[in-house]
Amino acid sequence: MSQGIDPRTAEPVGDPIPDHTADEVNACVDRAAEVAGWLAATSNSTRAAMLRAVASAIRDNETDLVALADAETALGEQRLVGELARTAAQLDLFAGVIEEGAFCEATIDHADPAAVPPHGDLRRMLVPLGPVAVFAASNFPFAFSVLGGDTASALAAGCPVVVKAHPSHPGLSNRVAKVAREALAQAGAPTDLLQVVHGYEAGRILVTHPAITAVGFTGSVKGGRALFDLASGRDDPIPFYGELGSINPVVITQAALAQRSDQIAAGLVGSFTLGTGQFCTKPGLIFAPDDQAFAEAVAEKAQAVDLGPMLDARIHSAYQEGVEALCKVPGVAPVLTPEAASGPGYHARPAVLTVSAKDFRANARALTEECFGPVTVIVSYQDTAELTGALSEIAGSLTGTIHAEPGDPAAAEVLDVLRKRAGRIIFNGWPTGVAVTWSQHHGGPWPATTSVLHTSVGATAIRRWLRPVTYQDAPDELLPQELQEANPLGIPRRVDGVLQPGSPQR
Amino acid sequence: MSQGIDPRTAEPVGDPIPDHTADEVNACVDRAAEVAGWLAATSNSTRAAMLRAVASAIRDNETDLVALADAETALGEQRLVGELARTAAQLDLFAGVIEEGAFCEATIDHADPAAVPPHGDLRRMLVPLGPVAVFAASNFPFAFSVLGGDTASALAAGCPVVVKAHPSHPGLSNRVAKVAREALAQAGAPTDLLQVVHGYEAGRILVTHPAITAVGFTGSVKGGRALFDLASGRDDPIPFYGELGSINPVVITQAALAQRSDQIAAGLVGSFTLGTGQFCTKPGLIFAPDDQAFAEAVAEKAQAVDLGPMLDARIHSAYQEGVEALCKVPGVAPVLTPEAASGPGYHARPAVLTVSAKDFRANARALTEECFGPVTVIVSYQDTAELTGALSEIAGSLTGTIHAEPGDPAAAEVLDVLRKRAGRIIFNGWPTGVAVTWSQHHGGPWPATTSVLHTSVGATAIRRWLRPVTYQDAPDELLPQELQEANPLGIPRRVDGVLQPGSPQR
Repeated sequence: MSQGIDPRTAEPVGDPIPDHTADEVNACVDRAAEVAGWLAATSNSTRAAMLRAVASAIRDNETDLVALADAETALGEQRLVGELARTAAQLDLFAGVIEEGAFCEATIDHADPAAVPPHGDLRRMLVPLGPVAVFAASNFPFAFSVLGGDTASALAAGCPVVVKAHPSHPGLSNRVAKVAREALAQAGAPTDLLQVVHGYEAGRILVTHPAITAVGFTGSVKGGRALFDLASGRDDPIPFYGELGSINPVVITQAALAQRSDQIAAGLVGSFTLGTGQFCTKPGLIFAPDDQAFAEAVAEKAQAVDLGPMLDARIHSAYQEGVEALCKVPGVAPVLTPEAASGPGYHARPAVLTVSAKDFRANARALTEECFGPVTVIVSYQDTAELTGALSEIAGSLTGTIHAEPGDPAAAEVLDVLRKRAGRIIFNGWPTGVAVTWSQHHGGPWPATTSVLHTSVGATAIRRWLRPVTYQDAPDELLPQELQEANPLGIPRRVDGVLQPGSPQR
Repeated sequence: MSQGIDPRTAEPVGDPIPDHTADEVNACVDRAAEVAGWLAATSNSTRAAMLRAVASAIRDNETDLVALADAETALGEQRLVGELARTAAQLDLFAGVIEEGAFCEATIDHADPAAVPPHGDLRRMLVPLGPVAVFAASNFPFAFSVLGGDTASALAAGCPVVVKAHPSHPGLSNRVAKVAREALAQAGAPTDLLQVVHGYEAGRILVTHPAITAVGFTGSVKGGRALFDLASGRDDPIPFYGELGSINPVVITQAALAQRSDQIAAGLVGSFTLGTGQFCTKPGLIFAPDDQAFAEAVAEKAQAVDLGPMLDARIHSAYQEGVEALCKVPGVAPVLTPEAASGPGYHARPAVLTVSAKDFRANARALTEECFGPVTVIVSYQDTAELTGALSEIAGSLTGTIHAEPGDPAAAEVLDVLRKRAGRIIFNGWPTGVAVTWSQHHGGPWPATTSVLHTSVGATAIRRWLRPVTYQDAPDELLPQELQEANPLGIPRRVDGVLQPGSPQR
């Protein structure tokens, strides 16, 4: 059973929502499989229209949806309005991606008897995998939930989606699904292209169901690993795209700190307390020159921030235990220890800890695990050698950030270390705030993501739900339009090794 | 210990080659990790020159290499000369792929404060993973071995390679590595970009070594599954690209059989006996209209084929056991049972079996497992409904083939069933013979390959060894050339959502 809870008061919101039984989950997947053929056969323009209809529907229901989201998450109206807009824009982006058509990687090699070895006519494109499962996250009730990037990219690819709802916003999950399914029906599409199930066991059933062809997941290392192991352990293993945990190192060079210490302190506090620190890109480790004044400035600014409550009771207690554990690591000194927050809800206070680079290296395992919430650890270093030595202790991360000055000699060296460990490198900015664009990458070496090759944000997220098929010597009339000789859709293609730009028909 | 054996005589070829010890394997990986930074920092043109130097070197050593390959595999000079040429051409193809530059997917979004949400300057490209392990196959001693497609694409991507040699051509493996390493040295590259290890345990060590970032494998379902489980079970799971087993269904429609029964029988025999049936794309299941005369024609032609010996003792005995097991499946009737082959080597005779579609469905599990060697099973069907019902029992396969006539009503229906199960669909041809082109796909749903998203043959095979990195607001001078504003390499890029063709500088 899932029960929406107001994090401000710990009081229930709405009625309890029963878990789906195994039979119900299986029936959902069967229905998804039944509509998979219909969806795979749709044109890119039909799917684009569907995505835009769903985007419009959530915009049209903004007031209602934001109010319910705020009741269940306490993330605040302003943030949630922005997140809903971003979620709708993401659906629109994928509509544009499939209309443009390069995403299917249409590639044609005409027959060549002179090649080594000789070959016939070969035509390759990407086609949808089939029904997929998506595990929603707690911290983005719109953008990484029922209609988030995983769902948007999977529907764009042509894969029906069964979402495992996150239990911390169960009412919103059902409400968003209802809005989306109504929009699908009005657009002439089967409503079962998008379904939502509730319950822990429902998730396990999804991952092991024979008709599920891939899984998208955003959540904890522990939960993600367990599901990854289930997906990999199937008789027929399926791709599992999990975004698990990220420490998001930030490096501040000597020159940058000398130049703009105050600005950096303010930016850091804004970033690590944003959304009460409940971002996967929260900067959790700050490598800064040894400077107690900087640490104190960060602590002072953090203390002044008015934080919203945390998302749910589990996250709230995990944060408090996490900070306690960090404080017990040898060499860690708190500059700002969280006071006990008052009131009945899941309120939390920020924490700022410091540790020397030497102690960090000696306790790297404990200090490089993500602690979800408004805590950051400042690692103080003496010189660049100590800095890069400490940085090399970090495993994979979604992001790495460099604050450096123009011509800064440390920048290239730090970049070299971070690039091996992070999927996105930010210069003179902050990792929170993940733009949804063609060039975005949201992923990184383990444990940031289970698949280092794929992103969960940005246009190329669609690649996760597609597999290649090559047609050899196929009659033109049996080929998909994307591969027909005349290129009726005007999509970009590679023909006999040469990229040909598209000629949009719309 | 590995010992080359002449399959024609079962006599040893060359000296025994000791297995690498754990320390030796670890030292190889350490050396690969040491040169990984050098390789990742090379320009595309430097790596292209390296690949071409290696290609030239194996062409220059053709006589010597083919003689040694023939002594260890008995595949015959003509076939091996062709395979060496294909292997060299494959290295050249990847040189061209990286010179052209689209493979790195350079994508630039300039800062856009008006976007939802606003974003900074974002630039994405693919970068090499790091050292990788490649498991060579028995049946292509050049094209899927030390310098095969996995190695060529990994080096092109910028990843050092440690090859686990196949024990059925150990002397050739060392000889090819020596030629390649000398060519690398002459091209000014570190020789440890390519290393070879021997021994079963060496393979396990490679897959679990912390510095190995991905694995390419071609071999059996059992061996591949065990290594896939090791790779997935690591504390930090790594991608495992295994090509395991494939039954390669062929469908002959009523119209096609009526039109050209003899031609189809001849083509089928040529394909299923090619290389003594030791191709991953060997047609193992032939769905044909119920016609005993066709089956007998196939058997008659097969009996007349002069087969070379099989590759090694294990494959030889597995083939004989596999045919015996198939013959015991209820409903299976042999049309051509292999006679015992005479002589001391690993000689084998072809087998042609038949079964009704009904009995096939009742025993699908036993009949859809690959039997490596010159055996094919003809499944006779009465009508299209029985045909598609039987086809739906097949799991994933590398290929699916359709023999149909122009306007054949069955073609589209069969295509629809096969496309879900196979990575390459061949019309009126045969699945053996895998061209190395931009549009090739060699992969398929489990158990054809462990990753349904990736290919082991063709230009896009390079994608397996690359991961995305996005730079946010990076100074131009710290960006790789591929992402610098001026596009100094003239590679194709997507800028602000629009594909821009390259302007080759060479």
